[in-house]
Order: sequence, then C-alpha cells, then structure tokens
Amino acid sequence: MSLHDHAQAIIRAALDRARPDDAVRRALEGVTFGRGRLVLLAVGKAAWTMAAAACALLGERIDEGLVITKHGHSRGPLPRLTIREAGHPVPDAASFAATAEAMALARDLKEEDCLLFLLSGGGSALLECPLVPEQELFDLTRQLLASGADIVEINTVRKRLSAVKGGRLAQLCAPGRVVQVVLSDVLGDPLDMIASGPCAPDRSTSAEALAVVEQYDLTLSPLALSLLGQETPKELTHVDSRITGSVRQLCAAAAEQAAALGYTPHVLTTTLNCNAADAGRFFAALAREQSGRGRRLALIAGGETTVRLQGSGKGGRNQELALAAAEGMRGLPDVLLFSFGSDGTDGPTDAAGGIVDGDTFARLAARGFDPAKVLKHNDSYPALQAVDALLLTGPTGTNVNDLTVLLVGGEG
Amino acid sequence: MSLHDHAQAIIRAALDRARPDDAVRRALEGVTFGRGRLVLLAVGKAAWTMAAAACALLGERIDEGLVITKHGHSRGPLPRLTIREAGHPVPDAASFAATAEAMALARDLKEEDCLLFLLSGGGSALLECPLVPEQELFDLTRQLLASGADIVEINTVRKRLSAVKGGRLAQLCAPGRVVQVVLSDVLGDPLDMIASGPCAPDRSTSAEALAVVEQYDLTLSPLALSLLGQETPKELTHVDSRITGSVRQLCAAAAEQAAALGYTPHVLTTTLNCNAADAGRFFAALAREQSGRGRRLALIAGGETTVRLQGSGKGGRNQELALAAAEGMRGLPDVLLFSFGSDGTDGPTDAAGGIVDGDTFARLAARGFDPAKVLKHNDSYPALQAVDALLLTGPTGTNVNDLTVLLVGGEG
Repeated sequence: MSLHDHAQAIIRAALDRARPDDAVRRALEGVTFGRGRLVLLAVGKAAWTMAAAACALLGERIDEGLVITKHGHSRGPLPRLTIREAGHPVPDAASFAATAEAMALARDLKEEDCLLFLLSGGGSALLECPLVPEQELFDLTRQLLASGADIVEINTVRKRLSAVKGGRLAQLCAPGRVVQVVLSDVLGDPLDMIASGPCAPDRSTSAEALAVVEQYDLTLSPLALSLLGQETPKELTHVDSRITGSVRQLCAAAAEQAAALGYTPHVLTTTLNCNAADAGRFFAALAREQSGRGRRLALIAGGETTVRLQGSGKGGRNQELALAAAEGMRGLPDVLLFSFGSDGTDGPTDAAGGIVDGDTFARLAARGFDPAKVLKHNDSYPALQAVDALLLTGPTGTNVNDLTVLLVGGEG
Repeated sequence: MSLHDHAQAIIRAALDRARPDDAVRRALEGVTFGRGRLVLLAVGKAAWTMAAAACALLGERIDEGLVITKHGHSRGPLPRLTIREAGHPVPDAASFAATAEAMALARDLKEEDCLLFLLSGGGSALLECPLVPEQELFDLTRQLLASGADIVEINTVRKRLSAVKGGRLAQLCAPGRVVQVVLSDVLGDPLDMIASGPCAPDRSTSAEALAVVEQYDLTLSPLALSLLGQETPKELTHVDSRITGSVRQLCAAAAEQAAALGYTPHVLTTTLNCNAADAGRFFAALAREQSGRGRRLALIAGGETTVRLQGSGKGGRNQELALAAAEGMRGLPDVLLFSFGSDGTDGPTDAAGGIVDGDTFARLAARGFDPAKVLKHNDSYPALQAVDALLLTGPTGTNVNDLTVLLVGGEG
C-alpha cells in the first residue's frame, strides 16, 4: 500500500466516524416530546442525514417537518418531511423561501407542541430572513469574507441583521418547546455561534458587533447600523440543547486508522484557526523535519483556517493549505499531506480539499504553475486540478470542520 | 520554579550553546594558512565573537584584519584588528566605509597570502558596496522587506546590485586564497545565501532575480534592471568553505534544558518559515490542545518567520508571533510561549522577541491593546512593552535564526 492508499483509508475512516446518524441517536436518547405535535426542522449541510436518522428513530411520532440543506446535499424524500435545497455559502432566493416556511412552522406551535431542531454547519446561509435589503446583505457578507474576519466575527455582525438568527427563531416558537440537536462545526462548540445560533441565547453583544465593523472598515447603511444596536435574546428557558459530533471525533478517527496502518499518530490540535496557506507552510516545516528518518508518523489537525481574499480565482481554504504545503515539501520522497472539509466541499468548489506530496511541486512547475502566484490570486483549484491533487468526496452528509493530516515515512 | 523561570533557563542554555567560540575553534582545526600574510575579515552580527575566537586560537599568526559588526555589537578592541560598527538591517554610511576598507584588504592579497573570512548573519547590510545609487538601494530594500518576500528572494535580487556579494568579494581576493568560516543563519545552510555569499559561488540566476521583481511588482531603474541581468561567479576554486553553528544546535540546547527541567521536549521543526503571526496562532492551537492535561511538554521550533508589513509601527517577527499566540492562548492557566532572535534583536528594536502566557491577553486588554489591531499596524513592541512581555537579552554575539518554545504544564 502506498502513502496515497493510506491517505484514502484514513479519509474514509474519518468521514465514517463523523457521519451524524449515531450522533443524532445518542443525542435523542431519553428525550420525551410531550403529548402535542412534534415538528421537525433540520437545517445545515448535514440536515438530510440528521433528519433521516431522526425519522429512523422516531418514525410516525414526527407529525411534519422541513429539511433545508445545501444544493446537491439532499439524498431523496423522507416520510412526512418537505425537503428544500438552498444556497451556500451565499444565501439565495431558495434560502429565503425555505426560511419563510420554517418560520411559519415555528409560529404555528402551541404550548404542548415541540420543535425538534436539527442544526448543522452551513445554517448561516441556509436559514436566513434578512432585516436589510438582500443586496446589502450580500454586499456585507462579501466584505466580511474578504476582510479576513473569522467566523465568530462574521456571525456576530450577521445575526443582528436577521429575523431568525441569534435566538430569534426560538422566540418565534414560544410558547412551544424546542429540543435542538446541534452537530458542531465551530471550534470549541459555542452554541450561539453554530449557524449563528437560531435557538441559542446569544452571548455576543451589540458592542462587539460594532467593534467588528470598525476593525475591518466595513461599510454599512444607517438601517444596518441601527440593527446592530438591537440586542438579541440572552435567555431562552423553553429550549433544550444537545451538542453532538465534533471535529474531535474526526481527528480521533483519523488517528485510530493511521495507527492501524502502522503510523504513530499525534493530534496536534483540534482548533486550528490561522491563515490556510501559512498552516500549510507550518505543516511543510514539520514534514521537512521528520522526512528521511524512517519513522511512520501521522500529524493530525482539526479546525477551520482562514483565507485572505486578494484575487478572484477559484479555490478554498483546504486547497490553499495543501498547495502551500506542496511548495514547502518540494522534493521530499516520503511525505504526503491532505486537507479537506468534512462536508465534502471547500469554498465555492466541488472539491473537498487537496492532497499533495513531495512530487506535487515539480508537477505543478512542469504545468507552468507557481504556487506563490497561484495563492496570491486565490486560484488553487485549477492548479491542483491540473496535477490531479484535488480531493473529491462529493457531499458527505456531515459538517464538522476540516481535517488536515501529514503522513511521513511510508513507502512513498 | 515557575514557567517563567523555566523559560529563562531554557533561553540561557540555548544562547550558551549557540555562542560561536567553540564553533570557530572546531571549524579551524587542521587548517593551514601557508607562508604568506594571514588577513582576517569578520563580518556579521557575530563578527566580534568569531574574531575573538580566531585571535585566541591563532594569536600573532594573524597579521592584520578588520571586524565589521552591527552598531552596539562590538565588545572592545582585539589585537591587530580594526573594529567597525555599521548599520543593520539597513546599511548606512558606516557600512559603505567599512566595506571599502574590506575591499582594499582583499585587493592587497598576493598569491601566497590568505584571507580568513569569518561570516555570520547580518552581513548583507554590514558588507555592502552598491552598484546603484544609495537611495535606490534603500528604496528597493524597503520594497522587498514590505512585500513579504523571503530572505532567499531578497538576497537573489540584492546581491546583483553589489560589488561584494554573490562571490564578488572572493573574486577581489584572487590570486590570494580564502578560508571562510560561516556561522549559518539561513535555513538549510546554503552558502550562497548566508549574508548574500560574498565568497560563495552563486547558485541563483539572473532569471530568478527577474522573477522576484515580477512576482512582487517591484519598481526598479533601468540601471538596476541591467545589473540583474549580469551573472555572478559560479565557480571559486581558491575558496575553502566551512559551515559551523546553526539553528539545530539552538533547538537541541533548548530541548536538553527543557528535558532537564522535567518537560518532554519535541523539536517540531528547524525550518519554520511561514508568516510570524500565523505561526503564533498555530502554536496557540497546539497550546489549547495540550493545556490542562497535566503533562509537561516543550514544543520547540527554529527558523525564521516572515512579516507582512501593512503599518508603520514598531516591532519584529518574534514579537508578532508572541502577540498572536497570546491572543490564542487567552485564559489558559498552564502555558507559556517565547520567541526570540538568537542575535538578541528582533526587527529594528532593542528587544530579542516576546514572552507571553495565558494572562497576557487580559493584561493587554486592560491597557487598551487589541492584538488584532496591533498586528494590523505591525506595532507589537509598544503593546508587549506595556505588559512586560518583551524578551530582552541585549546583543548575544551570535546569530543563528530564531527560537520559539511553547511550555505546557508547569506550575503556571
């Protein structure tokens, strides 16, 4: 078996473990939903898989429901549930229409009723009812993504411009109860940050939102600025929250599979959050140190890196990480690195990430690609595609951050 | 003993090991200098210490010589040697004057004579005779430092605008012999890159120099562009080169001292070369993972990170690394990170680097400093100074890159 075979085995094992079926089953153990109607609302990139798991578990106890997931992430009809696909990472008309349906379900709940809210990453774009004109929200989102702001900062601002985020969906459900099961894709699992916390008391403050605006020199309308000043709910006693699944399980599964293949695994971190290309350079520095020692090592990181948008190219953070690593691992005979989003998509591309080794740089050069220039234009996808270094998984049905693994010392 | 006490002990041990005295002695073992005159030329931040070691070893065999080091780095007179201090990182009038003296020494050598050339980091600025107007060289250096170009790229361009770099000093020495002893401060120890290789055959090409100009959109005069097109010497048979000392020894000494204090040391890399602040964020991600496990770990990296100049503040790459780490390690009770330049200076400041722990962020906030903003303005020095987090060693007499150490699990 080659390093590439080992990599594929580790990727499969990590994705198997991260699948939300078991996670949902564990989270719902012992939960009772009372005598009223049980309405299901699943939102996020893993919404279909989470909803399917709930259907398998609860069957006809679910009266009706709605699933809102990313375009291409539905896997077919589910009993008594309406399935909607919508835009991500930028919300589209389908997002707004589906969200209107979700809000109607929430408003219809009576005191004895219960909403089972299954939330996963990607919900920020999929569940959205803007309080400012659409164009302004798009423009602000673009400004935020381009500024280098992290997801916490982005959500602190954006949730205040929404009728459903920052606990406001839960307010709509009252007097009905809410049981929410959250598949975490935010480092450290803060409930109010995952998909901007539609059913979570919001810890972020208006002051923090305004500070983000100042820090990144964002341009906002007077309406948006006044909305940033309106506080979100800080207490929601009718909501029962359960967090399940996380990047830790993804890393642990990768470590176990690597160990089974003869590598000594080290989970370096589960909260990687620096610039993507520089994370790749750091990993390459680790690779240079460990290469040639004949030791089989798997260095593993989970998290979500950031990208500084400078160009208008096609790519994603995992592809940038892999490309930068390829440059730094140039010529090393015994190393391989892969990095991918556990949802199967990386940025606005159909790739999950990138997979590179010591030969990748030479193959890029032979095709006329200079990684430094490619990164400057945020155009990693065509470069990796040209040398067969894209990692393609298709939609995975889960979404628990990204996984980066450096393998050292296999047969190369 | 506290984490801070341990840190100080590790810093002392690493600097002791990196001192060039022994390194020079080892490098000169068995070398014969013939019957002619022996002329010493020492250049770099460690020039004085290297020259002193050579004097102790060779005594009156040295006929005359010249030491060119950074302002403030001389430690007094040495027998038969002229000591000059000059500008670094930007060359000044003293650099040019001292370099003229060095060139005169080189030109005076007869066939039976020998130049003992002791080279250490910082030589690029200290030994300089520009072939373009001074103001243009300053401007280009500023452009290169601000562009994010790495030291290899900077030197590939700059050596072609110089009468002494890229092997040209050695050409001046012919027919005299040259024995050069090089204390490496460039990752991987490439002779032609250390201080821009005054006595080394140059592997870089005019084509590469022009590629750097294009990549970073540098503005050059027609004269400078034509000089970039002139090739440097590719063979120098009259030069005997010996490399000694390196960042590996610095890391190894840190690891040994950490082990002696009860930490399990891991040298992660000796070639760290990514963005400084992102390296700090990566280290903070490691700290978050290891904090609270009651294990004493020392995670060690050597190398030279880069800084993206956006503001006009005061600071250096090690200070930026430490400041970014402080933000990511916020609130952790059992971690400490320090990062410093082994020459005792970091950027154009009197600090060697920074030393931070889980409380640093709160102390910064209390004094009104926001690390993200401070980093945006490249103004790390005043922030670290305000919370007593500057690492001050004074000039150390050596220069073998930077050392970054994360300590986890002490008494805090």
